[in-house]
Amino acid sequence: MNPRGFASDNNSGVHPLIMQALADVNNGHVVAYGSDHYTKSAIERFKTIFGNEIAVYFLYNGTGANVLALKSVTESWHSILCSEVAHIYEDECGAPEKITGCKLIPLPHVHGKISVDGIHKHLVWLDDEHRVQPKVVSITQSTEMGGVYSLNEIKTISKFCHDNNLLLHMDGARLSNAAISLGLEYVDFTKKAGVDILSFGGTKNGMMFGEAVIFFNPEHAKHSKYFRKQNMQLNSKMRYIAAQFDAYLNPDIWKKNAINANEKAQYLYNAVKDIKEINVVHPVEANGVFAIIPKEITEELQKEVFFYVFDEHANMVRWMCSWDTTTDDIDRFVKRLKELLKK
Amino acid sequence: MNPRGFASDNNSGVHPLIMQALADVNNGHVVAYGSDHYTKSAIERFKTIFGNEIAVYFLYNGTGANVLALKSVTESWHSILCSEVAHIYEDECGAPEKITGCKLIPLPHVHGKISVDGIHKHLVWLDDEHRVQPKVVSITQSTEMGGVYSLNEIKTISKFCHDNNLLLHMDGARLSNAAISLGLEYVDFTKKAGVDILSFGGTKNGMMFGEAVIFFNPEHAKHSKYFRKQNMQLNSKMRYIAAQFDAYLNPDIWKKNAINANEKAQYLYNAVKDIKEINVVHPVEANGVFAIIPKEITEELQKEVFFYVFDEHANMVRWMCSWDTTTDDIDRFVKRLKELLKK
Amino acid sequence: MNPRGFASDNNSGVHPLIMQALADVNNGHVVAYGSDHYTKSAIERFKTIFGNEIAVYFLYNGTGANVLALKSVTESWHSILCSEVAHIYEDECGAPEKITGCKLIPLPHVHGKISVDGIHKHLVWLDDEHRVQPKVVSITQSTEMGGVYSLNEIKTISKFCHDNNLLLHMDGARLSNAAISLGLEYVDFTKKAGVDILSFGGTKNGMMFGEAVIFFNPEHAKHSKYFRKQNMQLNSKMRYIAAQFDAYLNPDIWKKNAINANEKAQYLYNAVKDIKEINVVHPVEANGVFAIIPKEITEELQKEVFFYVFDEHANMVRWMCSWDTTTDDIDRFVKRLKELLKK
Amino acid sequence: MNPRGFASDNNSGVHPLIMQALADVNNGHVVAYGSDHYTKSAIERFKTIFGNEIAVYFLYNGTGANVLALKSVTESWHSILCSEVAHIYEDECGAPEKITGCKLIPLPHVHGKISVDGIHKHLVWLDDEHRVQPKVVSITQSTEMGGVYSLNEIKTISKFCHDNNLLLHMDGARLSNAAISLGLEYVDFTKKAGVDILSFGGTKNGMMFGEAVIFFNPEHAKHSKYFRKQNMQLNSKMRYIAAQFDAYLNPDIWKKNAINANEKAQYLYNAVKDIKEINVVHPVEANGVFAIIPKEITEELQKEVFFYVFDEHANMVRWMCSWDTTTDDIDRFVKRLKELLKK
Repeated sequence: MNPRGFASDNNSGVHPLIMQALADVNNGHVVAYGSDHYTKSAIERFKTIFGNEIAVYFLYNGTGANVLALKSVTESWHSILCSEVAHIYEDECGAPEKITGCKLIPLPHVHGKISVDGIHKHLVWLDDEHRVQPKVVSITQSTEMGGVYSLNEIKTISKFCHDNNLLLHMDGARLSNAAISLGLEYVDFTKKAGVDILSFGGTKNGMMFGEAVIFFNPEHAKHSKYFRKQNMQLNSKMRYIAAQFDAYLNPDIWKKNAINANEKAQYLYNAVKDIKEINVVHPVEANGVFAIIPKEITEELQKEVFFYVFDEHANMVRWMCSWDTTTDDIDRFVKRLKELLKK
Repeated sequence: MNPRGFASDNNSGVHPLIMQALADVNNGHVVAYGSDHYTKSAIERFKTIFGNEIAVYFLYNGTGANVLALKSVTESWHSILCSEVAHIYEDECGAPEKITGCKLIPLPHVHGKISVDGIHKHLVWLDDEHRVQPKVVSITQSTEMGGVYSLNEIKTISKFCHDNNLLLHMDGARLSNAAISLGLEYVDFTKKAGVDILSFGGTKNGMMFGEAVIFFNPEHAKHSKYFRKQNMQLNSKMRYIAAQFDAYLNPDIWKKNAINANEKAQYLYNAVKDIKEINVVHPVEANGVFAIIPKEITEELQKEVFFYVFDEHANMVRWMCSWDTTTDDIDRFVKRLKELLKK
Repeated sequence: MNPRGFASDNNSGVHPLIMQALADVNNGHVVAYGSDHYTKSAIERFKTIFGNEIAVYFLYNGTGANVLALKSVTESWHSILCSEVAHIYEDECGAPEKITGCKLIPLPHVHGKISVDGIHKHLVWLDDEHRVQPKVVSITQSTEMGGVYSLNEIKTISKFCHDNNLLLHMDGARLSNAAISLGLEYVDFTKKAGVDILSFGGTKNGMMFGEAVIFFNPEHAKHSKYFRKQNMQLNSKMRYIAAQFDAYLNPDIWKKNAINANEKAQYLYNAVKDIKEINVVHPVEANGVFAIIPKEITEELQKEVFFYVFDEHANMVRWMCSWDTTTDDIDRFVKRLKELLKK
Repeated sequence: MNPRGFASDNNSGVHPLIMQALADVNNGHVVAYGSDHYTKSAIERFKTIFGNEIAVYFLYNGTGANVLALKSVTESWHSILCSEVAHIYEDECGAPEKITGCKLIPLPHVHGKISVDGIHKHLVWLDDEHRVQPKVVSITQSTEMGGVYSLNEIKTISKFCHDNNLLLHMDGARLSNAAISLGLEYVDFTKKAGVDILSFGGTKNGMMFGEAVIFFNPEHAKHSKYFRKQNMQLNSKMRYIAAQFDAYLNPDIWKKNAINANEKAQYLYNAVKDIKEINVVHPVEANGVFAIIPKEITEELQKEVFFYVFDEHANMVRWMCSWDTTTDDIDRFVKRLKELLKK
């Protein structure tokens, strides 16, 4: 039995109902590459949620999804604006630059969130061929720092984008955690809030693999089928992604999983917030707790349960809760933490 | 229950023992992105087969594997030589060109196989900056036309490659079918025959997803971890690829599956070879039958069981057998075929 | 004093009137990067020739021009069809693939010319995301083998292209030699014959540097200013390209130069065609003579005057005549050739 | 006669001695693409200055030079660190990202200069495949803001780079202005100060076109000939770049030109520094004056002599002096400036 930890929601396994869904479609032959009835059915489910006027593309992973979203609407002389801690900026080994050719422009952030102010500064030298031209703003919901954009924040950014001929992309690798945090349906803070393209993730919340890109304006996806294939993201046995999403979109999975992850993060936060040596540096709005902790206990604590040091200079660590995290896991972890602090 | 057909071995499902392997690793947390013990174990299994001096990279799919293999050893001013019907040339939507920047040079083929003669012609203008410089030869085993390179053919090509400062890549999306066809172990007609880099596929032979690239000279893989990530092929929950390969490499799966697919192709071939309206145009050496059939029956027959017309001009069709194809499937198909021919 | 030879029209110098034109604009300051009145004036000159509804872009060289032309109208999942001896295929070190991401598909040729038949074969699997999608056909006029497409040949290809949603690009590095050969004005066998985009060269015919791309449909050039800059082809002191073209388009330069080069090629051809050891293998329609000559005299003859062996296997050599080639140059060369043959 | 202005040193013309040099080499044929004796001679001149152990590549322009320098030593998963106002970051339309695939990381600057502190912050997550890996630091000398790195500043940066496995590139589009400002020979503040690769510009200081990249370690240029060609920067009639550099490197040209440009910037600075409505915001160390001026006079003043507003928010303008700027030009300009301020 593998122990559970706080290193990453990517370290967790697959929800039993997702495993069941994989078994359910595992019989006989169906057309490969997404022309099968399971894929149609999964796309229908997305249309039930987001409306019929969407284009849906399934891919292998989040980096693939983000790059497809961005590549579909940019030329190589465009720029993409995002937070300086955005996954697309920091954690994809330059895939967005390499594949789209675009410049990614890092903006200052608060808890992983950017503002219209930060974008505005870069809307200069428009129409000048010496400069890359801003085309897309990308925000992450929930953010890489455990924050969640409010509905108003999203609407403010999307309005500014559309007033300035920019498109708004949302990296929703942890979209479900944001939905729970906001108490809103997916559609409310994406399509209805002015998001143009959505990377819709499930792997971090109980799926095995697979991500979706949802274009709220199908015109933007005009060539996406070619880009998906050329970017090596077209799954041959597509039914096994489709089946996962079909199951995942049932509230019994996505909602319950995200509720558990978020609640456990609150539980962990409450257990450490009054420890004076621990400084939680971002509001705990989704399923992650970011804290500056004493350097001298870090290694010992990691031995108990592994987690990442996110900022070496400040010794800021990240503790992620998952769909399967239990209060016991946390109690044991905090107990050990307190023991180490006493030494 | 989905019916079985002859369209593609990608249309088949997942072998029950692979499903079991996925279930077996589905507990608790393990480190994401391949630093887990399941991945180590799967790599060990490859080392048992190919020797310890290899570098193994798991990826999502065959196109991703081929591109990683090629990108790892080329610069953008190199050329890659392959058959004009190679998967990398025809069926990957230009991914190799887009991602590596290289020119792919199409060579004439017989049953999907190229020869030293075809390569030799392009070894001109060496060291001339106006020309792309040949760096890799890529062959497919078994080929896209159902052929299989003999051991001697591979050795002849690899010797020529190494004598001329070229590397030899093998696209082994259907490697197991070739192994069965040749009656050889994997290692005999790859590493020992002078292949430098191998794309090792399993999805077409009973896996759900996942492919491996095996570098027989780890120096060639020096930067591959970055290329894999940047090319969006680094799986987060890696254990679910590793577990599949760990199971797949058991002869009870890979061998039995490939034997069945190959035998059924022979069975199908024997059932149609004496029908005068059917012209089998390539030797049936692996799991595919390629035949020119009368145009007027094609559509009706596709309704019975779908398959692809591979060459519209000649009305050449491809019938692929899979790990789960049965003699019943074939009997029914050939019966229908004969009925249609009588009309 | 540097001796003249037959290696390349790129080896020749700059026509005195072009030098004069450079001197004429060399005073004071004008806006850089093409917003100056000299550039406007040169563009006007092109409009006088080709009509007002064109977009003109000046670049540094022919490879840059061809790549801009192709990049402006393609996405990375397109293919570009051209002769297997096309400059863009063989002599640009893969720049078209690297910069556009497209696959270049080599077609068989006769004297450097392709046919509708060759193109037609590749119009398959349309709309299929596994395959690159044909978008542009590129022909070279005059060809790399010294041939010239007739007006009818061009019209046949352009009609086929437009009937099949393809664009027609013409690489006119030696356009003037073709114009003289055909006895036609530039516009007659380009725009009026259905060419969509033209690389217009002058360097090989008496200019110092600089090339133009002319889009006969300005819509195709919608983003070209960004691609030119991003591809490092935007000249800062643009007036010095503009001035050259302004002068060059005067028939006293382009026509007289091309007439001389073509006539001298005929003169050379006439001087060697009856020598039984010399086999001229392509019709001499522009300014080059391609001949198979005895291997044993090649090196000695190159010492007299350098030229290139184009096909090592066949010992086919290329003798190029230039705007400044004289009958004396040829007489001396042929005299030496005959001496060597006698030995 | 075109009037002189302060918009850009790129707006100026070509020095008469450079024109003479072009005329001097304009006779007969020489081998194209850089295998001629003029090119050899120009390279020799560079070796006289920088030592024999260098590799020199001539290109068309500064963007081409910078990209060749960076491409020669990077893989697509590397990052390049530079000032956020660096030409490679802001003024090359994303060419470095598009061509190298690398991420460019913008650092804070003072007068266009970066510091070790700014670099240091990004040396984290080394060897982690999720992150791009720092490989090159690029500094501009003199800077885009008219500043000049002192010898000590360069040495401090180069030492830090080499201690951390980073290479140091210098964008020397205005290298001569820096040399004059520092009172040093080229070699002293480049090779001897630890610079690894130098983009050596002349166009802004009296040349017509052409730039050189100098690799102080020829190993770094191992593949540069291919990259130069593939990046469309290989000049066919190379002698016309070589001849310019051969002439330019004579102190009678480069030194006198740069001295004039720098002195005139000082003259202009002295003429405006005491005007209370004018705030010069960067030290005038080379040939540019950067000043915040009243918005209401800007347009009128531009009519007199054109110049650029560099920062629209602050109304900061740039006044560049050139090799041919005269005190009369400045007197007239400042007179008009004062008139407008009085209104």
